[in-house]
Amino acid sequence: MEREHNLIPADTLWKSFLYRIIYRSDTRLGKLFDIILLSLIFLSTIIIMMESVPKIDKKFHYTFIVLEWIISLFFTAEYWARIIVVKNKKNYIFSFFGIIDFLALVPFYLSFIFPVTKYFLIFRMLRMLRIFRIFNLLDFMNDGYFIVRALKNSSRKIYIFLLFLVIFSVIVGSLMFMVEGGRTGFETIPQSIYWAVVTVTTVGYGDVSPITPMGKFFAIILMLAGYSIIAVPTGIVTAEMRNKRQNLEIVCDRCGNEDIDDDARYCKQCGKKLA
Amino acid sequence: MEREHNLIPADTLWKSFLYRIIYRSDTRLGKLFDIILLSLIFLSTIIIMMESVPKIDKKFHYTFIVLEWIISLFFTAEYWARIIVVKNKKNYIFSFFGIIDFLALVPFYLSFIFPVTKYFLIFRMLRMLRIFRIFNLLDFMNDGYFIVRALKNSSRKIYIFLLFLVIFSVIVGSLMFMVEGGRTGFETIPQSIYWAVVTVTTVGYGDVSPITPMGKFFAIILMLAGYSIIAVPTGIVTAEMRNKRQNLEIVCDRCGNEDIDDDARYCKQCGKKLA
Amino acid sequence: MEREHNLIPADTLWKSFLYRIIYRSDTRLGKLFDIILLSLIFLSTIIIMMESVPKIDKKFHYTFIVLEWIISLFFTAEYWARIIVVKNKKNYIFSFFGIIDFLALVPFYLSFIFPVTKYFLIFRMLRMLRIFRIFNLLDFMNDGYFIVRALKNSSRKIYIFLLFLVIFSVIVGSLMFMVEGGRTGFETIPQSIYWAVVTVTTVGYGDVSPITPMGKFFAIILMLAGYSIIAVPTGIVTAEMRNKRQNLEIVCDRCGNEDIDDDARYCKQCGKKLA
Amino acid sequence: MEREHNLIPADTLWKSFLYRIIYRSDTRLGKLFDIILLSLIFLSTIIIMMESVPKIDKKFHYTFIVLEWIISLFFTAEYWARIIVVKNKKNYIFSFFGIIDFLALVPFYLSFIFPVTKYFLIFRMLRMLRIFRIFNLLDFMNDGYFIVRALKNSSRKIYIFLLFLVIFSVIVGSLMFMVEGGRTGFETIPQSIYWAVVTVTTVGYGDVSPITPMGKFFAIILMLAGYSIIAVPTGIVTAEMRNKRQNLEIVCDRCGNEDIDDDARYCKQCGKKLA
Repeated sequence: MEREHNLIPADTLWKSFLYRIIYRSDTRLGKLFDIILLSLIFLSTIIIMMESVPKIDKKFHYTFIVLEWIISLFFTAEYWARIIVVKNKKNYIFSFFGIIDFLALVPFYLSFIFPVTKYFLIFRMLRMLRIFRIFNLLDFMNDGYFIVRALKNSSRKIYIFLLFLVIFSVIVGSLMFMVEGGRTGFETIPQSIYWAVVTVTTVGYGDVSPITPMGKFFAIILMLAGYSIIAVPTGIVTAEMRNKRQNLEIVCDRCGNEDIDDDARYCKQCGKKLA
Repeated sequence: MEREHNLIPADTLWKSFLYRIIYRSDTRLGKLFDIILLSLIFLSTIIIMMESVPKIDKKFHYTFIVLEWIISLFFTAEYWARIIVVKNKKNYIFSFFGIIDFLALVPFYLSFIFPVTKYFLIFRMLRMLRIFRIFNLLDFMNDGYFIVRALKNSSRKIYIFLLFLVIFSVIVGSLMFMVEGGRTGFETIPQSIYWAVVTVTTVGYGDVSPITPMGKFFAIILMLAGYSIIAVPTGIVTAEMRNKRQNLEIVCDRCGNEDIDDDARYCKQCGKKLA
Repeated sequence: MEREHNLIPADTLWKSFLYRIIYRSDTRLGKLFDIILLSLIFLSTIIIMMESVPKIDKKFHYTFIVLEWIISLFFTAEYWARIIVVKNKKNYIFSFFGIIDFLALVPFYLSFIFPVTKYFLIFRMLRMLRIFRIFNLLDFMNDGYFIVRALKNSSRKIYIFLLFLVIFSVIVGSLMFMVEGGRTGFETIPQSIYWAVVTVTTVGYGDVSPITPMGKFFAIILMLAGYSIIAVPTGIVTAEMRNKRQNLEIVCDRCGNEDIDDDARYCKQCGKKLA
Repeated sequence: MEREHNLIPADTLWKSFLYRIIYRSDTRLGKLFDIILLSLIFLSTIIIMMESVPKIDKKFHYTFIVLEWIISLFFTAEYWARIIVVKNKKNYIFSFFGIIDFLALVPFYLSFIFPVTKYFLIFRMLRMLRIFRIFNLLDFMNDGYFIVRALKNSSRKIYIFLLFLVIFSVIVGSLMFMVEGGRTGFETIPQSIYWAVVTVTTVGYGDVSPITPMGKFFAIILMLAGYSIIAVPTGIVTAEMRNKRQNLEIVCDRCGNEDIDDDARYCKQCGKKLA
């Protein structure tokens, strides 16, 4: 962020001014902008939800349309402002948030050309992802990054675990298809696999449940398995989070101790004052 | 506690005496007081529950009213005693337990002015929180504090995780609304989000469950996701609890730092060698 | 065990011989005895289960009665043998397993005096606990003890957590009673509390589920809470298990390192050969 | 793998060439072979699933039969090629994957002799296990091995935990049989045990749920227990994963010990200083 800011040419003072409001939150106007943005994202999400409830939509249909216009126009203006104000325009447009910002606008403008269908919904919902923009404002970036990094570092192990789990569910599902034959909910193998996943993940809707004693016996084994192997992803992520300092750069330069808490001012191993 | 005690003026001996009974449990009368208090809180909770069961309420209606009177008068007397006896009255009144003690009395007295409605219930239920008063008596304070501190220290990470989870559920819920159309339980987006949360948290009531093959396929992915990412809050809290001394008595005697890891040889705050 | 053995008087050789068979499994007869015992416990449990299934009971009623007689007589003989053979009889009789052994016999003999009721069942089921006797045989003692110790050490923290959870469920249940009024499953506060526990523990039977939008909103919050705070008991137990060596006596006598794996022959911190 | 490769006799160049394609993936043909194999395994699984859906099977019955022929012939050819090409044939045939490869072929050839029944299914489904062959290709071996080793190392503790859990469920199930008498879902002890397992593992289908207040009270206790003791397997596996190097390449170069903790400075097996 700091660096981007420095790249802004000094010739256009208003661009620099606008940049500060839009991309940073260290001024009063910048904070106000962030709050308005957050409110509109929130409002937009609520409207999309409420439109799907016939009773409410009937009552407030025109209000919703007007609000949608206002929000969309604001987002459009904001999107242009972001492009104009930033130096490396290409970088912004093809960044994660640049694409989200763009996709959030598309359904509104497409609705003039094509008839509105419920499939527009999901694009409008993507606006919610813009909430993460606000993290800078709230100093939550580090903690969010901590979680994402732990998940990313353990992702390969978790994929393998899920592969095990899926193959296990497919085999157990097929077994149950043989055991429970054509009974309700076990008519086909995919249905039986659906049941196996519902069971092993301990969700247990109960829309499908074993009927024969043999089926119940298998279900008991599957449930105990699911209850035990939840330990695997938990263990993986916990082990990953375990030794990670959130600030990776701090090491004691006297004894080399790397296990330094965020709030430490002295090394707990050798007592040296930390820089 | 110790300090508060010292602040009591020596001129009123009976205040000092009462203080010891009410606020401490190192005398026989003090212990008796604690036990009576605990019993009345427990009794009060049972009465509130039983009053809601028509069959039982019909039978014991007058007993309940009488008991409620006795308990409320005792609590009132106790509240006044606490205020009179303590030196810094304002501190007590606006402390967490002071407010709870007050709110627990309000519904009883309001019921003379306004007609009793079921909304009084929740205030009466707040009395249960007074149970935590009793922790001093049972030496459970340290362990309770250990849990609260671990949750507090990891609260920011857990909030972010919940934010991820909510946004994820909203998007998945919207997707399911598109997939399962107007089928039972997926009539509106909020309903579909309700289903998504029921599924991702592995609760799985089964009051709403996917019907179409496509819906079941999405449900499988969502269940596997929920089963895996439960590792995140678990990992966060475990990592937080991991290095914390469970014996809270070890404190740096130079700077008073209480956050000392099990393997620390020097205080990380002031660099003092630990005993 | 070793010690008990030494206490046996040398004067009665057959007692010493029987002691070895019953209490130890280092002889062929001793192993055979353990296997017979284990089989009978298992058989006994199966019979109790099958007796409760009318269709099966009708068919095998007399077989079950005969088997029950044989098993009970064997257990009686074994119980007397254990008492006769052991030196410190009182110690055995009032030990955990001594009491279990006795209670497992009681229902059989009571059934001659009193009419058999289904309440005898639970005592007969206690026989299952005798399975843990067999652990000596299988070298599982250490691992079982590891789990029990971890649970015992963290039991106070877990009790407090459960107290939090129960109070939380009672308050949420009362709130839901107010929100969902007299709707099915929320007719009384105890019923609403039942629902709250079903939800917060992520069991989610679905026999009771929220109906009103407001109720569903509360349920969402409760589910997210339950999904997150499962981290607390997990974190407590994991932290407890974390630093425990299974063999507590081994410490490096050069550097004092206590974190020594079961299979270590050299200290991983200073390289010293371990005794 | 490396070693096996060296054992191939130089006299038959085409065997060496084929070996490289089949067993390794460092050539373009080798990679192509792996991809074709993976696709066929995947296709085969999909066909088995789809055959169980009457509507789809009716439409594509002959396509499925033809595809099954092609896949089976390819797998047969591959199986022979593997045997011919490898030097130590016996080793391959009786290895885990050798047996899986063989079992995956059996149902196809048996179907010429015996009438096809749904019990052939499960053998055909075993083909899915061949997917793990592909791990070499994707460098997932290490991570998969990490999970398997953690589970293997903690398996004894987990078995004991499951034994506890099963005995606990049997006793609780019997208690509920007494409490809920002959009510729906609690007609027999095995049924009540099924309910107990469904509850304690937090699956909660809801096909059986307590009806009487007493039953609900027991259920509450069981749910709280299940919610808390899930911490046990989680703690066991996490503790196991905790100190294990995730980078398996670090090995003691004196004694070949691979089980080296992250904080180790000396090999715990031979005492050599680690690099």
